Amino acid sequence: MDPYVGEMKGVILTLHPKAVIIDITHEISKFNITMGAFALASAAPYFPKGTVHVAVVDPGVGTKRRAIVVKTKQGYFVGPDNGLLLLAAENQGIQHIYQIANPKFMLKGTSSTFHGRDVFAPAAAYLAKGLKPEKLGPEILEPVRPEFTLVKHKAGAVIGRILHVDSFGNIITNVSRSEAAKVGIKEAVNLKLADQELTLKVKKAYGDTKPNEPLALIGSRGYLEIAVNRGNAAERYKVKTGMEVTVKSA
Amino acid sequence: MDPYVGEMKGVILTLHPKAVIIDITHEISKFNITMGAFALASAAPYFPKGTVHVAVVDPGVGTKRRAIVVKTKQGYFVGPDNGLLLLAAENQGIQHIYQIANPKFMLKGTSSTFHGRDVFAPAAAYLAKGLKPEKLGPEILEPVRPEFTLVKHKAGAVIGRILHVDSFGNIITNVSRSEAAKVGIKEAVNLKLADQELTLKVKKAYGDTKPNEPLALIGSRGYLEIAVNRGNAAERYKVKTGMEVTVKSA
Amino acid sequence: MDPYVGEMKGVILTLHPKAVIIDITHEISKFNITMGAFALASAAPYFPKGTVHVAVVDPGVGTKRRAIVVKTKQGYFVGPDNGLLLLAAENQGIQHIYQIANPKFMLKGTSSTFHGRDVFAPAAAYLAKGLKPEKLGPEILEPVRPEFTLVKHKAGAVIGRILHVDSFGNIITNVSRSEAAKVGIKEAVNLKLADQELTLKVKKAYGDTKPNEPLALIGSRGYLEIAVNRGNAAERYKVKTGMEVTVKSA
Repeated sequence: MDPYVGEMKGVILTLHPKAVIIDITHEISKFNITMGAFALASAAPYFPKGTVHVAVVDPGVGTKRRAIVVKTKQGYFVGPDNGLLLLAAENQGIQHIYQIANPKFMLKGTSSTFHGRDVFAPAAAYLAKGLKPEKLGPEILEPVRPEFTLVKHKAGAVIGRILHVDSFGNIITNVSRSEAAKVGIKEAVNLKLADQELTLKVKKAYGDTKPNEPLALIGSRGYLEIAVNRGNAAERYKVKTGMEVTVKSA
Repeated sequence: MDPYVGEMKGVILTLHPKAVIIDITHEISKFNITMGAFALASAAPYFPKGTVHVAVVDPGVGTKRRAIVVKTKQGYFVGPDNGLLLLAAENQGIQHIYQIANPKFMLKGTSSTFHGRDVFAPAAAYLAKGLKPEKLGPEILEPVRPEFTLVKHKAGAVIGRILHVDSFGNIITNVSRSEAAKVGIKEAVNLKLADQELTLKVKKAYGDTKPNEPLALIGSRGYLEIAVNRGNAAERYKVKTGMEVTVKSA
Repeated sequence: MDPYVGEMKGVILTLHPKAVIIDITHEISKFNITMGAFALASAAPYFPKGTVHVAVVDPGVGTKRRAIVVKTKQGYFVGPDNGLLLLAAENQGIQHIYQIANPKFMLKGTSSTFHGRDVFAPAAAYLAKGLKPEKLGPEILEPVRPEFTLVKHKAGAVIGRILHVDSFGNIITNVSRSEAAKVGIKEAVNLKLADQELTLKVKKAYGDTKPNEPLALIGSRGYLEIAVNRGNAAERYKVKTGMEVTVKSA
């Protein structure tokens, strides 16, 4: 790991020595906003009310991409205005979005190459100490919106995408429990995935099938997952993040 | 890294905002209970009295595998009842083992797929806040016991196994200082390992031989190790975790 | 990751329960003092006054290599006397250097194989609690000095080295902003690097060129970097840490 994350934490603790800092992940693929948004949306619901979340997946750093803070009913999200924050923030109920523009709340001698340390970390520290977010800059009414959670309905099926493949090879789609319910999925599901057509039983847990047997389930985050008990579903079906998946009742 | 660990920490801080949370490792091979038990047993002795250790290497999640808390003379171990916790706990002196069964101390809407977040993390937070462990569920008298630390004695030799290969390539066996003493190992050791027979000097430190020279030592955890000064012993001798090793005085 | 880092944190918290412990990085290549020194020097300026930095890249562990604490105007650096600490410490202004020699401040039953846990971690905990550094051992006037930040000037050019390749493939040289200014580098730079001659525009940010276009910049740490917007400069130019680079005005 580069020292960048440590530098951000140093900045936060310098401004706010009592801050409690928790890592969610530093293993997001470079520039993969979808993967970052998904990890943030997965983890954020488990954090205390008032938590300030900082996230940096930032292919546009150094360009005119805005830095923002999203105020929700539960806390704050700080990061680039590229869609990264909105999936997690929308789950909590967005109240206001502000641009981080006031240099008073940035690191002195701000580099134009690392906003995480120079812009996002200080803003997060000030918010955690009680700064009103409107002090950071003007309100933004049209943030950049993520498109990766949209699904389509067609002929009784939901057409979605692979949101994430976790380190066990479990395949997490962007088809939520409620979207799956709309097409009547209960005990079994029919899937089209990477030129394959699968019919899988819908189980409650990975261990509810025999070892090496595939299954579908609504995972711990509320999305339809495809898994292999003690095996690697992503390798078996040769899928990658971003691929289309068509889902209907079997 | 998946967001799972961050989610566990969020749950702990939500229930116990003053908790101090330290990572030992998140690099245990999938489902490798031996490797997890070894890492936990290595690190636990260095933590303060009263520490609550949470460990998750859990091939049986979603099955009827029990969730347990082990109360020792030094603190608590929380995790699955699959042998993972007992090596570390036995080193501290086990007092009682309880099943975690009371849903009052689990996360609401508990998923059946991630006990780390939904069962173990809340139990650990409540214990760290002072909950009596017997409130979590009934006492267990016959936990699942690990077998990986058993060694055999035969014809003046100890027959053990490779417990762990660390990231420097040092080979850590399950032959403890006292087992090595039983067969009279002092200044040199004779080893049979992956169809090779080696005679190595027993040194106090990796740097006590010339660069690229092999040695044996009782490592910082109290187990016999095979190492190469500034080199990679596991690569040189082509060994892997789990292999048998026969050890006698040279 | 091996449990070593967790063990060090356990030792620190046992001695100093209120310590706040932040990771900078655990991804330094084995025995690569240059890479470790660079990461430490990059991150240290962002930490609060009074911070105690512990660093372990330690090919000489178990030999007569000394353990030291460096007292600077901003805080302390604790680790091996092999040059690892001095780049970061010199940036803060070194006041005194002491050997860690007093066994009273080491872990009982000190292993000769892991000074990080047994010597450096306890010293850091005691310093963070307010121990005077001179209590640890005698003053050292001639520490081992790093050579990796020295550059040469020849025929209007600076001859330096690749200090670090970060995980984005950005190439960080040991040519500082002031050394670059001495040879008149402003809007463009001429580089000789791995048998290639490049002329690159000097920009302020990675995003100031088109995607896949190379650029030079003074990076967020104050050193000349070679980068490719959204690409991997180290792969494109086939460079590695330690290679020589000749830099002059274009």
